[in-house]
Amino acid sequence: MRATFIYAAGDVRVTDAPDPKLVEPSDALVQITRACVCGSDLHPYHSAPATPGGTTIGHEMIGVVTEVGAELRTLSKGDFVIAPFAISCGVCEYCHAGPQTSCVNGGFWNETNLGTTGCQAEAVRVPLADGTLVKVPGLNPATADERLLASLLTLSDVYGTGWHAAHRAGVTAGDTVAVIGDGAVGLLAVLSARQLGAERIILMGRHEARTNLGREYGATDVVAERGQDGINTVLELTKGGAPKVLEAVGHLPAYEQAVGIVRPGGAISRVGVPQYDQGPIGWSFFGKNTTLTGGPAPVRAYIEQLLPAVLDGTVNPGKVFDRTVSIEDTPKGYAAMDARESLKVMIRP
Amino acid sequence: MRATFIYAAGDVRVTDAPDPKLVEPSDALVQITRACVCGSDLHPYHSAPATPGGTTIGHEMIGVVTEVGAELRTLSKGDFVIAPFAISCGVCEYCHAGPQTSCVNGGFWNETNLGTTGCQAEAVRVPLADGTLVKVPGLNPATADERLLASLLTLSDVYGTGWHAAHRAGVTAGDTVAVIGDGAVGLLAVLSARQLGAERIILMGRHEARTNLGREYGATDVVAERGQDGINTVLELTKGGAPKVLEAVGHLPAYEQAVGIVRPGGAISRVGVPQYDQGPIGWSFFGKNTTLTGGPAPVRAYIEQLLPAVLDGTVNPGKVFDRTVSIEDTPKGYAAMDARESLKVMIRP
Repeated sequence: MRATFIYAAGDVRVTDAPDPKLVEPSDALVQITRACVCGSDLHPYHSAPATPGGTTIGHEMIGVVTEVGAELRTLSKGDFVIAPFAISCGVCEYCHAGPQTSCVNGGFWNETNLGTTGCQAEAVRVPLADGTLVKVPGLNPATADERLLASLLTLSDVYGTGWHAAHRAGVTAGDTVAVIGDGAVGLLAVLSARQLGAERIILMGRHEARTNLGREYGATDVVAERGQDGINTVLELTKGGAPKVLEAVGHLPAYEQAVGIVRPGGAISRVGVPQYDQGPIGWSFFGKNTTLTGGPAPVRAYIEQLLPAVLDGTVNPGKVFDRTVSIEDTPKGYAAMDARESLKVMIRP
Repeated sequence: MRATFIYAAGDVRVTDAPDPKLVEPSDALVQITRACVCGSDLHPYHSAPATPGGTTIGHEMIGVVTEVGAELRTLSKGDFVIAPFAISCGVCEYCHAGPQTSCVNGGFWNETNLGTTGCQAEAVRVPLADGTLVKVPGLNPATADERLLASLLTLSDVYGTGWHAAHRAGVTAGDTVAVIGDGAVGLLAVLSARQLGAERIILMGRHEARTNLGREYGATDVVAERGQDGINTVLELTKGGAPKVLEAVGHLPAYEQAVGIVRPGGAISRVGVPQYDQGPIGWSFFGKNTTLTGGPAPVRAYIEQLLPAVLDGTVNPGKVFDRTVSIEDTPKGYAAMDARESLKVMIRP
């Protein structure tokens, strides 16, 4: 099969790779219908060390089950499935009570502990498939609407991640929410906050095409300034800060901005993987009784909940995709996202 | 009157000071019945810059109203009152919905913005007295039991602060809670967690007299090790971490310990004023979907709720006081707490 490998920062290539095979009786094999490039894939794209043999990449996909291990009970050949970006067993304490991303038996794609490869490929082996995969009954991906496929693909990561930000912040009806970041996750955090009843949603971002989609998703205000200027504008708009701040970037200045705009007693919910270890949690944070929450989204727990509104078209999270490439053109997809020419790139294997 | 001043690190003296006077019509004057030294007073005791004129100190007291400003509606001369460590107006957004420590009109003792002085004195002027002070009806401090006075005094800060830690962490019936720190706040966090129904309470502290009081307050386990050894012990005891961690110290190693022992999806609630600005909030924190909460306790909001069980003797938070000094001996009280010869020192003006 054809699969995507990263060899060093900026060096992504599509090459021949062995077809996946069942290893454990709890495995399934999936033929990938659509995959995509994640904002978080850009972190290794910027900084991966040189690896002569390359490593697979990609953690978002929808596809069709082609083979099932002997132990599987919920899946059959031919099932159309959504794969979360984390692998989870479905039976441990964390799979029951959350966070499913802390599953004691699970892990992530492209990790050696589970022997997983990447989803930017034609096919993939899925460990712990009963726990991990979510079936979408009654849908034939070969004839499904392209926009619906795009929206289903967002349930693999970015929509569930945006939802996690809003859910963990405790967004409720009538709330005022600030969202930092106009990437796919930030825009879907706006959509999620709106679904949870937020009345005022301030989107901090500076790319007009993206913030326009943010307005379509429910943003009532857009703040293009960054740093202290951005903080001042939000403090003024909210007369003292936003009670809920959703941070969907992952870089330190975005977190610092969150600390600056959060209202006393309010919450900052982070879902962008922090590209830093230390951050301000002293008096500027503590003095306001700030709560910091969030983490890797347990999207597995949200898929069934979010699926109906996707299937009936109430929400269209798939609009975050503004480009589709063939598997061979995956490197061009990385370059387009890196240059911010593209918001999010879908891959059609 | 006699009042306590700090002139430099380690240099606390009791001297003559002007008697307090009403300044604003919302002021009250209070004759102090009992005051005390706080663990947080030891921070300036360790590091205050030299101030030739000295600055007043102390933020915990109970006392009797001796004079009221023209605007006061809830207080009269002769009322016995508890003073929270923060001054709050009682009418702004934060006084209604919390956190009261963020009151837009309020502030703290010993601050120039409100012209306040300190509570380690014979008397003090209380700004915004209707909002700040809580009356204890039907009690004559001159004849009241000494143990009851001690317990009432803890409502001024350390009991409400321990309660805040447990409350903000969301401690509920059956919970497993780890408390870091065997100072007065840590011990009263144990008591609070027990009151909220926690079943297993692991107290991290190494001073046997204190941890024994912690056991009396409800601790089921005591862990004396610190650092990685302490983390390993708690991870073993809890098979993977405590879902609620109450950090009652304020130094970076205590926070790092909290990050190490919190269970995936769990909460760290800090109430010790952080003596650091930057701390680890990267993958070690984020990857587990940790929540960090807490802050300066809005004790004003808790006094009425906690008062009945204090008055009827159900709880005895005043046991944290193990020494009483006269106002003249306040410097000896500081020295005793600093040397850890004393857990908490009461001052009888």
